Amino acid sequence: MRKILVIGIGAGNPDHLTVQAVKALRTVDVFFVLDKGSVKQELVDLRAAILAEHVTRPYRWVEGRDPERDRSAGDYVAAVGDWRRARADVCLSLLAELGDDEVGAFLVWGDPSLYDSTLAILDDLADRGEEFDVEVIPGVTSVAALTAGHRVALNQVGKPVQVTTGRRLAEGWPAGVDDVAVMLDAKCSFEGVDPDTWIYWGAYLGMPDEILVSGRVGDVAAEIRAVREEARARKGWIMDTYLLRRP
Amino acid sequence: MRKILVIGIGAGNPDHLTVQAVKALRTVDVFFVLDKGSVKQELVDLRAAILAEHVTRPYRWVEGRDPERDRSAGDYVAAVGDWRRARADVCLSLLAELGDDEVGAFLVWGDPSLYDSTLAILDDLADRGEEFDVEVIPGVTSVAALTAGHRVALNQVGKPVQVTTGRRLAEGWPAGVDDVAVMLDAKCSFEGVDPDTWIYWGAYLGMPDEILVSGRVGDVAAEIRAVREEARARKGWIMDTYLLRRP
Repeated sequence: MRKILVIGIGAGNPDHLTVQAVKALRTVDVFFVLDKGSVKQELVDLRAAILAEHVTRPYRWVEGRDPERDRSAGDYVAAVGDWRRARADVCLSLLAELGDDEVGAFLVWGDPSLYDSTLAILDDLADRGEEFDVEVIPGVTSVAALTAGHRVALNQVGKPVQVTTGRRLAEGWPAGVDDVAVMLDAKCSFEGVDPDTWIYWGAYLGMPDEILVSGRVGDVAAEIRAVREEARARKGWIMDTYLLRRP
Repeated sequence: MRKILVIGIGAGNPDHLTVQAVKALRTVDVFFVLDKGSVKQELVDLRAAILAEHVTRPYRWVEGRDPERDRSAGDYVAAVGDWRRARADVCLSLLAELGDDEVGAFLVWGDPSLYDSTLAILDDLADRGEEFDVEVIPGVTSVAALTAGHRVALNQVGKPVQVTTGRRLAEGWPAGVDDVAVMLDAKCSFEGVDPDTWIYWGAYLGMPDEILVSGRVGDVAAEIRAVREEARARKGWIMDTYLLRRP
């Protein structure tokens, strides 16, 4: 039976890799890479550097072109569904490179469970009749890297935390929580919250270019937007996340 | 300046340790351990095994007795506050073992940001005038280990997730979310949710004794309670967590 490993490789620091992940990398015959084009070449290069450091046995490296997602679509869930189907088509062609009894792997930023589509794509492929075993290796999330950088807890004592998206936050502060971790926010939705909220913001977490800014939203929101736009223009891409804590 | 490392060591599998954590362990002069008594001796032993595997330079190992928390107290936040102050007193005596310019470390299960009190204790000690630098090394959370074991995503596409406690869940399903990760639940609060909710439950995640049960709450709640009580009686302790997903 073919085996697919879905390996969380951490938030950007190659040393976020776990011992379990290193051992898993060393069993892999084929690494699958979804190339997003030159914009995120730095991230593809970082994966290659991880393999160069930890893997000495021969392996194959198979790249597919990641389809573009329609970010202008009104129906977010439907648009993501279309995009996932297109990705699954690409992944099907990648999977054809894997022989019987071989081990393939996807390397996933952060942890495969948090706002990543690899597991859903593999479910799609299984629904199409593809046969393979799946094993997931957990990784350090960007949220854990964020709170580590700021040396703060994610939750307050005994209180809940919500993890959500920028799109959701823009619709209003979530009910019943004072602490909100926000991912996938291209639009600085923190600008819309109560200015007395505290923000712990971070970009390129764990990488040499890591940027951390924290403070009262009313005091630092403009600074974060400016820093974010400058960094994205300079590097060509940005990955950032933040924690909001209500007083 | 004295330096304190707060190192996330993962959910129970020694191989959850990151390369960053391994490198950090090798810089430590004094490891601080809060001993909870014989009940959790297995967890203290697991930490010792991690050091035996990864650290060859000499180090000191200093244990303090972790004070008991008053679990019968009506005011949860106040009770945790009292307990944290008592722990801070113990930690102050541990810290006295650390010389100038030495590096001390606390090894924290999972990630130091999620329902762990070490960072709050260090804040208490800093408020008392103790001087030291703090560095946090992020780790694999029990939530990531849980979802990896079940090979499921934590969130549904574009939707929020709430991380909360058993105590909170017992007060009612959180507003505005269909996916809830629950920690610190000694009372099987999942028994009170809509029986059509799906549960992904796990105990001793990543350890040889790992137990995973999933299914419709109405079908598996009694099985989880029985498995949980049997395992806790047999081992003398249990650490478990679960994800609830509403249809």
